[in-house]
Amino acid sequence: MVLEKSLPMTAGDSECSYANNSILQRTVIVKAKPVLEDTVKNMFKNGDFPKCFTMADLGCSSGPNTLLSISNVIDMVHNLYKEKNKSDEPPEFQVYLNDLPDNDFNSVFKSIPYFLENLKKEKGDKFGNNCYIAGVPGSFYERLFPSNSLNFVHSSYSLHWLSQVPKGLESNKGSIFISKSSPPQVLEAYLKQFEKDFSSFLHFRSQELISGGHMVLVYVGRSSPDPKNYDSCCLMDLLTKSLVHLTAEGKIKEDEIDSFNMPSYTPYEEEIKKIIQMEGSFTLERLEAFESDMAAIENPNGKHFEDSAKLAVKTIRAVTEVMLASHFGTSIIDNLFEIYIKYVTEYLSMGSTIKFFNISLCLQKI
Amino acid sequence: MVLEKSLPMTAGDSECSYANNSILQRTVIVKAKPVLEDTVKNMFKNGDFPKCFTMADLGCSSGPNTLLSISNVIDMVHNLYKEKNKSDEPPEFQVYLNDLPDNDFNSVFKSIPYFLENLKKEKGDKFGNNCYIAGVPGSFYERLFPSNSLNFVHSSYSLHWLSQVPKGLESNKGSIFISKSSPPQVLEAYLKQFEKDFSSFLHFRSQELISGGHMVLVYVGRSSPDPKNYDSCCLMDLLTKSLVHLTAEGKIKEDEIDSFNMPSYTPYEEEIKKIIQMEGSFTLERLEAFESDMAAIENPNGKHFEDSAKLAVKTIRAVTEVMLASHFGTSIIDNLFEIYIKYVTEYLSMGSTIKFFNISLCLQKI
Repeated sequence: MVLEKSLPMTAGDSECSYANNSILQRTVIVKAKPVLEDTVKNMFKNGDFPKCFTMADLGCSSGPNTLLSISNVIDMVHNLYKEKNKSDEPPEFQVYLNDLPDNDFNSVFKSIPYFLENLKKEKGDKFGNNCYIAGVPGSFYERLFPSNSLNFVHSSYSLHWLSQVPKGLESNKGSIFISKSSPPQVLEAYLKQFEKDFSSFLHFRSQELISGGHMVLVYVGRSSPDPKNYDSCCLMDLLTKSLVHLTAEGKIKEDEIDSFNMPSYTPYEEEIKKIIQMEGSFTLERLEAFESDMAAIENPNGKHFEDSAKLAVKTIRAVTEVMLASHFGTSIIDNLFEIYIKYVTEYLSMGSTIKFFNISLCLQKI
Repeated sequence: MVLEKSLPMTAGDSECSYANNSILQRTVIVKAKPVLEDTVKNMFKNGDFPKCFTMADLGCSSGPNTLLSISNVIDMVHNLYKEKNKSDEPPEFQVYLNDLPDNDFNSVFKSIPYFLENLKKEKGDKFGNNCYIAGVPGSFYERLFPSNSLNFVHSSYSLHWLSQVPKGLESNKGSIFISKSSPPQVLEAYLKQFEKDFSSFLHFRSQELISGGHMVLVYVGRSSPDPKNYDSCCLMDLLTKSLVHLTAEGKIKEDEIDSFNMPSYTPYEEEIKKIIQMEGSFTLERLEAFESDMAAIENPNGKHFEDSAKLAVKTIRAVTEVMLASHFGTSIIDNLFEIYIKYVTEYLSMGSTIKFFNISLCLQKI
């Protein structure tokens, strides 16, 4: 498990922490809400509520988004329960928040008493008093829960992270991800790793979900079948450019860039569908695609290019800093991200946008 | 919930942390093992193993003891499973580690991958691969788990901590706990709080345990019916003496001592039995009492009084520092514990011992 040691988001609540720089991820949760809503409605369409509704949020991270999806699901179930006007006891909730063991669970756990207190206030004692939250440290590319124990799995903006940097990227020189200059074997290595990881994910979740259980998964994906044309590629290209800038200044070595590759992949719709079909445990109930313009989210008037760039770079920094620092050393980090801001500002001022292409799925266990 | 904010053990792995000063608690877990062993044997006497054995360790804290009891139970179940030579699949384990939200769960979670890796090595893939561990932040004087979801509850050296400082201790002047000079209403207030807390504990656990489920609870208790004669009272008396020493030096005020009281209680066997009977959800299957001599545990040759005193004081410091600092201020802490070491050394050099009287119980849900 390479990632268990190398890929936490930036912890704590400092200026550069993930907690303070996850507005993009929040927007995506909000935009993907209709799929979540339809899935929850579908689960309870017969008006049968389980005694205990057991759900897991995989890749929960820490910060203001951590309890957002959970809270949305509880709201939805509460509304449906009220609609059905049941005289039975309301369902209990067992909520599992999962992330890698390095995640800042302490900060998540400190917020739980207030979350539960508010739930009680909002929903009343009968409904709001029955929510039990646990943290589960571990990789979602391994087993995390007992067999047939989950009703529902949710994961947002996590599954584009691979379990490790793919093997066989030696020829990806001068790039830190898939770029226009990456040779075919690099593209193949990335796709192979994604196929292996997503298949494992589906396999393990199918063991943990009850028969008929649902999953809602939200990805950063790509709108083009060509892996070199992913929508947010400008961001990785500009990060590479910033690293190359530092080699020119003698601060890092060229072969350090050659040997660094991002452990992530932005899949195309058809790639996802194919893996689901091959693995065979789930039916794909729904697939939606939607775009987010990062700069527009963060700076809606769209004129202050440097402000937009700063916010975009902070978002990327929060999810890559630990990784970059462990490869290139911590001393270059501030410098690197200053240069990165300049390049992103320049890019935005030419009228370009920073688009993310998102894919949300609803799956049902066969 | 007063304690959720005021009573974590000292976090991290510094010299004064709970993790590095919990050898007494470890010895108690080892000494209470026979009760645990008999309970587990009793649970599986028919050779029926549940598909998933769900257990909670309440007050798990962080440090080397956190996974010790869990590990003992898994060993015991594994041995019984081998003895019964079952051809069925081995049971899965869902383990919940509970403590207050301020507990250092991050440090516990970082140790879990290694724990699971070792389990797999020791027990083989079939048995060792089926253990799922989650952290549950919250007070065990409230509900923590869904109804009828647990097979087994364990709690060691936690239930003598009350949910709050008892009300009505205004007359406990010059003392920080029950002392020879405490008036009757102070004794009553402590007992009343203990009765309330332990009853709540039993009530909530009875909702969470399946019918026939078991609990093993280990307390610091007392061997005498008189609450002024608890066995480890020397430690609290000497801590009070150290605080009084600081008033003489003008470093703290007398009324600061008057207004400080420890939120803990060391119950007598009959008090525990009475509450179990009154609450009515459990039968008491077994009760054992055993003593630990703290100085002898830590310094078996028993001659180096100062070394023994230092180790004893570190143990007390790890569980009281946060509480004392929040009342008296952090600036007096080092000074306070230096004086405390002197008093404890003096006490030990007079041939006295620091005895803890421990009570372990096995309860079954009716």
